[in-house]
Amino acid sequence: MTDVQAAMALIKRGADALLIEAELADKLKSGRPLRIKAGFDPTAPDLHLGHTVLINKLRHFQDLGHQVMFLIGDFTGMIGDPSGKNTTRPPLSREQVLANAQTYQEQVFKILDPARTEICFNSTWMNGLGAADMIRLASQQTVARMLERDDFAKRYAGNQPISIHEFLYPLCQGYDSVAMKADVELGGTDQRFNLLMGRELQKHYGQTPQCVVMMPLLEGLDGVNKMSKSLGNYIGIAEPAQEIFGKTMSVSDTLMWRYFELLSFRSTAEIAQFRADIEGGRNPRDVKVLLAQELVARFHGQQAAEAALADFEARFQRNAIPDDLPEVRVAVGATGLPVFQVVKQAGLTGTTSEAMRMIEQGAVRLNGERVDDKGLVLAAGETVVLQVGKRKFAAVVLE
Amino acid sequence: MTDVQAAMALIKRGADALLIEAELADKLKSGRPLRIKAGFDPTAPDLHLGHTVLINKLRHFQDLGHQVMFLIGDFTGMIGDPSGKNTTRPPLSREQVLANAQTYQEQVFKILDPARTEICFNSTWMNGLGAADMIRLASQQTVARMLERDDFAKRYAGNQPISIHEFLYPLCQGYDSVAMKADVELGGTDQRFNLLMGRELQKHYGQTPQCVVMMPLLEGLDGVNKMSKSLGNYIGIAEPAQEIFGKTMSVSDTLMWRYFELLSFRSTAEIAQFRADIEGGRNPRDVKVLLAQELVARFHGQQAAEAALADFEARFQRNAIPDDLPEVRVAVGATGLPVFQVVKQAGLTGTTSEAMRMIEQGAVRLNGERVDDKGLVLAAGETVVLQVGKRKFAAVVLE
Repeated sequence: MTDVQAAMALIKRGADALLIEAELADKLKSGRPLRIKAGFDPTAPDLHLGHTVLINKLRHFQDLGHQVMFLIGDFTGMIGDPSGKNTTRPPLSREQVLANAQTYQEQVFKILDPARTEICFNSTWMNGLGAADMIRLASQQTVARMLERDDFAKRYAGNQPISIHEFLYPLCQGYDSVAMKADVELGGTDQRFNLLMGRELQKHYGQTPQCVVMMPLLEGLDGVNKMSKSLGNYIGIAEPAQEIFGKTMSVSDTLMWRYFELLSFRSTAEIAQFRADIEGGRNPRDVKVLLAQELVARFHGQQAAEAALADFEARFQRNAIPDDLPEVRVAVGATGLPVFQVVKQAGLTGTTSEAMRMIEQGAVRLNGERVDDKGLVLAAGETVVLQVGKRKFAAVVLE
Repeated sequence: MTDVQAAMALIKRGADALLIEAELADKLKSGRPLRIKAGFDPTAPDLHLGHTVLINKLRHFQDLGHQVMFLIGDFTGMIGDPSGKNTTRPPLSREQVLANAQTYQEQVFKILDPARTEICFNSTWMNGLGAADMIRLASQQTVARMLERDDFAKRYAGNQPISIHEFLYPLCQGYDSVAMKADVELGGTDQRFNLLMGRELQKHYGQTPQCVVMMPLLEGLDGVNKMSKSLGNYIGIAEPAQEIFGKTMSVSDTLMWRYFELLSFRSTAEIAQFRADIEGGRNPRDVKVLLAQELVARFHGQQAAEAALADFEARFQRNAIPDDLPEVRVAVGATGLPVFQVVKQAGLTGTTSEAMRMIEQGAVRLNGERVDDKGLVLAAGETVVLQVGKRKFAAVVLE
């Protein structure tokens, strides 16, 4: 495998799409450090692992010797929502932007190499553009092309108003690529239209168009919805070490592989070996621990990772779960089953009312943690350890 | 009739529409001099009477004591066509704009009162707007509203490209009204959408919205198409006095009334009297002469008007057309009839071949001018004087 092939494999790892592969290969072959652009919202950042999918990819580029331009979109942030319809988006002051940039750096430099990172603000060039320049920029695109963008098409068809300035924002984002002379832009799959706008505008301005790497949205802890603050299914990168460790251990054995692909810096060969080990009988939990340790180490350091592991193991030992648990399969159906019914069906109590009583007495543990909520419903797709009293255990496969 | 009613009658004379009448009445009642806006193209002006319909209306406002703001749209003129599709619209330089403004003044001050005229350039305020201001301006309107404009709607439906900057131009024109604090804007009926944009934007910016006076397009000498350079049916205001006089005399007796309404500063009462006189038997030609004289006097002075009349009458006498011509009606059909056939059917020659021969000999005159073109076709709707040789005359009603 040549250097360029190896680089390309790393860049494509976990990516949804790469446009245009041949163009990127040419740029990589040139040997010069490429200018890698990624744009970020200028509002107060409080990143979770979902955001780091993109940042990790930036790190891959840095590991290959390229320069990351971390763009804070403060120009539009300082305008706010000029139509006044969205009152939750007040304009940001210069001071707020700078404070937010500081917070960004504190968080992203846990992943990025500061020596190969340039923090950019698009106000630098956008504030220098006049109304006439904006008109010239707007002349580069047609109304029909803009209405092809998914959300615009839907709103237009649904008679929902689209303010004209909303057509100007993708142009501004595209113009950023021109001003920054970006070789590559990274973004979410949902940013496809805007990312391609950068390519088109660069061509108009006589530049070699940027390549585009689109990263997928990371699933949250539930394994279904995308990770987000509002859904509560997230791991924040500023959370305490034990939280990050515990939440990581709570993901399903299936989702674990997705997290390895998008969040771990272990090589794909290493990860393939883990899969083989598990197929050969290794406990998935042992591999999940490695992922949890890597993530804690990234955000809190190696020492914290070791402490979190020790803490986890101590609790695990304290709860004295035997290594050779009997495995029981319980069908919980599409809507899941209350924990007391699972306890009964796993044969850990004789009746559901006995199971209820044991929960009330604090004698039931789920994965080593006491069950306090009698209404807790267990869903299909996971294997959990249930314990009743001191001696009754079962590894319950919920299906 | 109160002063305000009289003012309103003068303002409405010849206008296609006035929006909103009650608002204009309120503004007139205030007694303060109103700010009257009209926008003009910054390219080299070479005005014809069609353009003066609007300028005459500005003069009406001045006669009522108001201030005219003659706006030269140099901001967009200096951008040119940024999409590069229209190569016939290169960007204008500052020097060209100023030279064109000078030419405008030379021409329009034959109608307008310089003491009540302010020449404005929209670059004055537009060059001060940044990209952010342009975005704020664009947020004031929706894509759907813009696509309601007739030409945009047609092009969008017909899959013809509309560049996004074309949406910004009506906003710029509307913003001019904000920057100028216009009380009234004048424009052609075809400018309806843009004129109303000024109203909407002024409301957004907390101003009392401007009233809008829409003037019709003037028919050219043919009485059918709008007056335009490219159709050749125009009277240029810089043409020699005799040309203006002669061309005015060539319009039909019907079109004459339209010209009186839109081009003459005679009162409507006076014009009504002319109509009554003609119904009572006065020769329409005598009234047309008054219109021709008024127009020549406006652009070349009273002396030139008298000279043009004297010249016209001398030629008229020389051709010695008797006052009591026999009137003959000739049906020329929808496609008109060649002059030699009209001559024959009017009874001025015995056969069409005799008529042809007389034309070849230079012995046939049409309205006093020798007919040189045997192929000349006469159309319905006019009364012409045909003469064959020295003594045969007829007033021929072409129908």
